[in-house]
Amino acid sequence: MKSSRIYKREIQKIESKLTAFFSGKDPASLYDPCKYLLESGGKRIRPFLVLASAKAAGGSFKQVYNAALAVELLHNFTLVHDDIMDNSDVRRGRPTLHIKYDQNTAILAGDIFVTLSYESILKDCKANAVKILKTFTQGIIEVCEGQSLDKEFELRDDVTITEYKEMIYKKTAALAVMCCSIGAQIAGAEYKHVRAAEMFGKYLGLAFQIQDDLLDITGEEDKFGKKIGSDLVEGKKTFLFLKAFEKSRGNDKKLLLKIIKNKGIKFSDVDKYKEIYYRNNVIEDAKSEIIRYTKLALKNAESLPDYEGRQLMIWLANALIGRNK
Amino acid sequence: MKSSRIYKREIQKIESKLTAFFSGKDPASLYDPCKYLLESGGKRIRPFLVLASAKAAGGSFKQVYNAALAVELLHNFTLVHDDIMDNSDVRRGRPTLHIKYDQNTAILAGDIFVTLSYESILKDCKANAVKILKTFTQGIIEVCEGQSLDKEFELRDDVTITEYKEMIYKKTAALAVMCCSIGAQIAGAEYKHVRAAEMFGKYLGLAFQIQDDLLDITGEEDKFGKKIGSDLVEGKKTFLFLKAFEKSRGNDKKLLLKIIKNKGIKFSDVDKYKEIYYRNNVIEDAKSEIIRYTKLALKNAESLPDYEGRQLMIWLANALIGRNK
Repeated sequence: MKSSRIYKREIQKIESKLTAFFSGKDPASLYDPCKYLLESGGKRIRPFLVLASAKAAGGSFKQVYNAALAVELLHNFTLVHDDIMDNSDVRRGRPTLHIKYDQNTAILAGDIFVTLSYESILKDCKANAVKILKTFTQGIIEVCEGQSLDKEFELRDDVTITEYKEMIYKKTAALAVMCCSIGAQIAGAEYKHVRAAEMFGKYLGLAFQIQDDLLDITGEEDKFGKKIGSDLVEGKKTFLFLKAFEKSRGNDKKLLLKIIKNKGIKFSDVDKYKEIYYRNNVIEDAKSEIIRYTKLALKNAESLPDYEGRQLMIWLANALIGRNK
Repeated sequence: MKSSRIYKREIQKIESKLTAFFSGKDPASLYDPCKYLLESGGKRIRPFLVLASAKAAGGSFKQVYNAALAVELLHNFTLVHDDIMDNSDVRRGRPTLHIKYDQNTAILAGDIFVTLSYESILKDCKANAVKILKTFTQGIIEVCEGQSLDKEFELRDDVTITEYKEMIYKKTAALAVMCCSIGAQIAGAEYKHVRAAEMFGKYLGLAFQIQDDLLDITGEEDKFGKKIGSDLVEGKKTFLFLKAFEKSRGNDKKLLLKIIKNKGIKFSDVDKYKEIYYRNNVIEDAKSEIIRYTKLALKNAESLPDYEGRQLMIWLANALIGRNK
């Protein structure tokens, strides 16, 4: 069966399991907001990473469905708390949780999401539970550290590309590493295969985040789901921004410095800054970096033992490179 | 050695271990706020419950120090998020975390506290890890559900004493149940001893919360650490309030109804309401309830196998009944 069809079929199962997970849970004031967020959809990439990794490492989907649910619950924990911190009003085309309900409800929804993620993964832990849960916990620690660094960087004028990569490693890639690691571990993989799965997750995560930075400039608004140039408007220190700041001289440098000083720009200035990015060739730099990381991801996927699982990983990596949202 | 001295000695160790746990952790923007909260002290009752329970069940303190740290980290997670939700400015005589730093920092501090609590307990999980972690996770789920119910009750006019007890069971007692349970489980106790330890935690937790409600009226301000009558001012549906509302007739009933309608009273009216409580004998009702629950706790403690551990539990239960803060 084609990988894209397996993805669709399995994600469908994940959706049903998510619905079942929350059905009949009380009190409504706690769980209804969680359901609201889950109903707004999402690509469910992280649960798919768990499934693909378990399969590629020689195991089966069935062994890891609860772990797959767990990482999606965890992802939703980060979304709801990040949206409060970033003051975001819209997520996946609907009001964010703290706007739809209120801030206290959103804080508590995040708290129960992270707790339920442990409840769920525990169901799939048989042998080796402590090791698996340490990996799971380490992933969450890194996400929190990454979020904290991201906030720190907003206040700093001298962030380097190396620091940026450390930050996105923690904020985005560490969770992908964790997904692939627990998939392989629960499947009972030997150490070198667990490591290869983790490295697939790492490079895929890094490519994914730089792709996200790139789509903020080159994406199509109706597909990407947010206004093009939002990162510039918010003064975010993205890969594109930091690369342009490193490479530019003269007037371009001055204009980029203005973003830092003013902590962002107006939407009407987005086109001017897009030109700076093109002029300094950072769009191409970002594309090369995405391709480089994707190749590293694929190399690691190819060392895993199961053919069908490997194909799923390869398909996913290529699908993410080609994505427009 | 006297139980009170063992408590002091062990809590000293817990303090050192908490300090060591956070030393050298990066980024500072994430971990310094956590240290700030921990430095403000606290009775460390929950870690002591883990220690006493492990000992009473036949194990040793050494087996459960990391689990003891874990429940204190978890308790601090609930404090920092609750303080945001309750809009509290002061905790243990110092500005709350979201006041000292900012709200985003406080949300993230809570998030990392709960995650680190898993990191810590995992170090003490050898045999039986999945069972222990399920108990730990269930405790957190109930705390979140309890907090959500508490918020629901603020908006409702018809809360019953039965509902109130369900709420405080989840919000306060469930964590004590969990502390005692994991202490006994890690110590390798047999099922009936784990259950007895849990029941000790349950009744102690219920007594503790009603005592807290009582101290809001009968406490001494400089010792209790917050203004007497705060629960009345905030319109909280405490044991005393619900009992008075159930028992009173005529003008007293009308005045109590006013609290519900206005969601609280002015500080200048506290004395008037104190009189209503005394007139309807609810101070005595609360005291009897506290004594009843404490006796049930003690009965369960007495069924545990280790003499010294039992003495610690008995000492703690009596110390909490006699507390003024």
